[in-house]
Amino acid sequence: MDRTEISTLGEFGLIKHLTENIQLTQPSSLKGIGDDAAVMKYAPGRRVLMTTDLLLEGVHFNLEYVPLKHLGYKAAVVNFSDIYAMNGTPSQITVSLGVSARFSVEDLEQLYSGIRLACERYGVDLVGGDTSASMTGLTISITCLGTAKEEDIVYRNGAKVNDLICVSGNLGTAYMGLQLLERERIAGGGDHAAVFEGKEYLLERQLKPEARRDIIEQLHQAGIKPTAMMDVSDGLSSEVMHICHQSGVGCAIYEDKLPIDIKAAEVAEEMNLSIVTCALNGGEDYELLFTCDLKDYEKLIPMDDIYIVGHITKPEYGMTLVGRNGEELELKAQGWNAFTK
Amino acid sequence: MDRTEISTLGEFGLIKHLTENIQLTQPSSLKGIGDDAAVMKYAPGRRVLMTTDLLLEGVHFNLEYVPLKHLGYKAAVVNFSDIYAMNGTPSQITVSLGVSARFSVEDLEQLYSGIRLACERYGVDLVGGDTSASMTGLTISITCLGTAKEEDIVYRNGAKVNDLICVSGNLGTAYMGLQLLERERIAGGGDHAAVFEGKEYLLERQLKPEARRDIIEQLHQAGIKPTAMMDVSDGLSSEVMHICHQSGVGCAIYEDKLPIDIKAAEVAEEMNLSIVTCALNGGEDYELLFTCDLKDYEKLIPMDDIYIVGHITKPEYGMTLVGRNGEELELKAQGWNAFTK
Repeated sequence: MDRTEISTLGEFGLIKHLTENIQLTQPSSLKGIGDDAAVMKYAPGRRVLMTTDLLLEGVHFNLEYVPLKHLGYKAAVVNFSDIYAMNGTPSQITVSLGVSARFSVEDLEQLYSGIRLACERYGVDLVGGDTSASMTGLTISITCLGTAKEEDIVYRNGAKVNDLICVSGNLGTAYMGLQLLERERIAGGGDHAAVFEGKEYLLERQLKPEARRDIIEQLHQAGIKPTAMMDVSDGLSSEVMHICHQSGVGCAIYEDKLPIDIKAAEVAEEMNLSIVTCALNGGEDYELLFTCDLKDYEKLIPMDDIYIVGHITKPEYGMTLVGRNGEELELKAQGWNAFTK
Repeated sequence: MDRTEISTLGEFGLIKHLTENIQLTQPSSLKGIGDDAAVMKYAPGRRVLMTTDLLLEGVHFNLEYVPLKHLGYKAAVVNFSDIYAMNGTPSQITVSLGVSARFSVEDLEQLYSGIRLACERYGVDLVGGDTSASMTGLTISITCLGTAKEEDIVYRNGAKVNDLICVSGNLGTAYMGLQLLERERIAGGGDHAAVFEGKEYLLERQLKPEARRDIIEQLHQAGIKPTAMMDVSDGLSSEVMHICHQSGVGCAIYEDKLPIDIKAAEVAEEMNLSIVTCALNGGEDYELLFTCDLKDYEKLIPMDDIYIVGHITKPEYGMTLVGRNGEELELKAQGWNAFTK
């Protein structure tokens, strides 16, 4: 592959090269890249949502096995996921990059192509950013704006006693994908393709996650407004605890209700890991966790890819994991904590 | 000074510690830190402005002489400057930090105290962010939202032939402050205080710049809407060229009209530097550069700290610096280009 040094373009040239042909597609985007700030015009009555995510090489991703295009896609999608988790719609992002001389112009084209693909798929405009040299590795900082009607916004603090606790998709799969990738990285050479065969879904969950726009749309169509919601980025335990703390309630999560992908369970067993622990603490699933009033039970049952995993309790009950034999364990949030690694 | 390791608090504990007691003061801020996204409610008819800035240790700042509190203040203010440069008012920021184990909790408290001071002074709310471990040094990514009435927004592309070119404050001073700091750093030990005496203003321009809200207010009160505007972060030459390119015009800048601080000129002479070159290419002044219709001339003359430095010409004339003896030189934008350093 060709390698063009960034220094041949310079800062302004690089930005121009990466952002030319970027179109604004959202009616709310009045002015994108090219001025001191982007300008948006939102419909009257819409509330503006804002979230941000910082990804650092060596902490959040390892370029030995993460393709740059996938990384760009994921960096954008994890922000969209936060906007959906408010029951909103993402509309604009800014992208800031710090890049060392190790990266070529072609590398950054790959990264941008992933960001642009994610934007295209989710109907989001790239409206600005900042590109800079870095002394060390790659830094990606994305901020996302979205909108919602005020009455539609779902916070973390609205869960009530007896509410159902639901999650979308499955849990722990992205973490098992990471374990596979790390094992092969440490093993070094060899026929990785053969090892990965049949496990592509696990890798995809780690490398190229999707935000659950479809779940938000389903809930909307069914006329369900969750009482509390957030996305699962640090593992179910940690996220359930956020909702319980902020809502002033307790919870019971049933181990046998946790949605587990069969392949993920197989790989976990092969690696001598507990898939339940992975599902509770694995992180990076980007599924939605939400609580619903009991009256929505009938509507929830037929819905696609939504699973009831427990219910909200009085705060005195604490946060509990109910095991397969009825034993009760206190939920512990390991979450993701690189500071103590 | 006490040193508390970040690992004793962990990721969630650190964020909680740094962001507790943060109040929302803007009527537009409905929900700040603590959910998947912040929520804003802007007055009907307001447009939303968005800008972002990434600061990397070793590229944009050197902690050998930049106090963390000043760094926090500056990181916020440079974003406010971009919003003012659209003729808008900043209202919310998110702050993402990547921090290595070299930094203590007290260090981050200092950084945050600077950010919070800037927010307080400029009436901006801190509504979210992301804090993460880093393998290498300090990364600061701030995104700022602001608002403006649609009819008030000033872009870079509106300059017309015969418009006056104006700048606020003075130019090259922040760059001379940087030269002083770098010289003392390289010199090592010694009585820095004695060297810096009487030159505090230069250091302040580099270490703790302000955004020119006062200029925006003055223009507003005088009923002047610039035809084009931007802030001067990469040096006047580079910025004038942006306005000329985007507006499809040329310009004449007069060397003897450039506003130069007398102390900065003295230090430049002492260091054998051309203060004119510093004023044109120094960067980090965070002054406002704007163009005005000729009819506003009478109003501009009595205004405080605003200087007419040239005028807009037909594009055929090119971008020209007119020297003290009437000689004409082509303006060259060196700007800031760490990629080619």
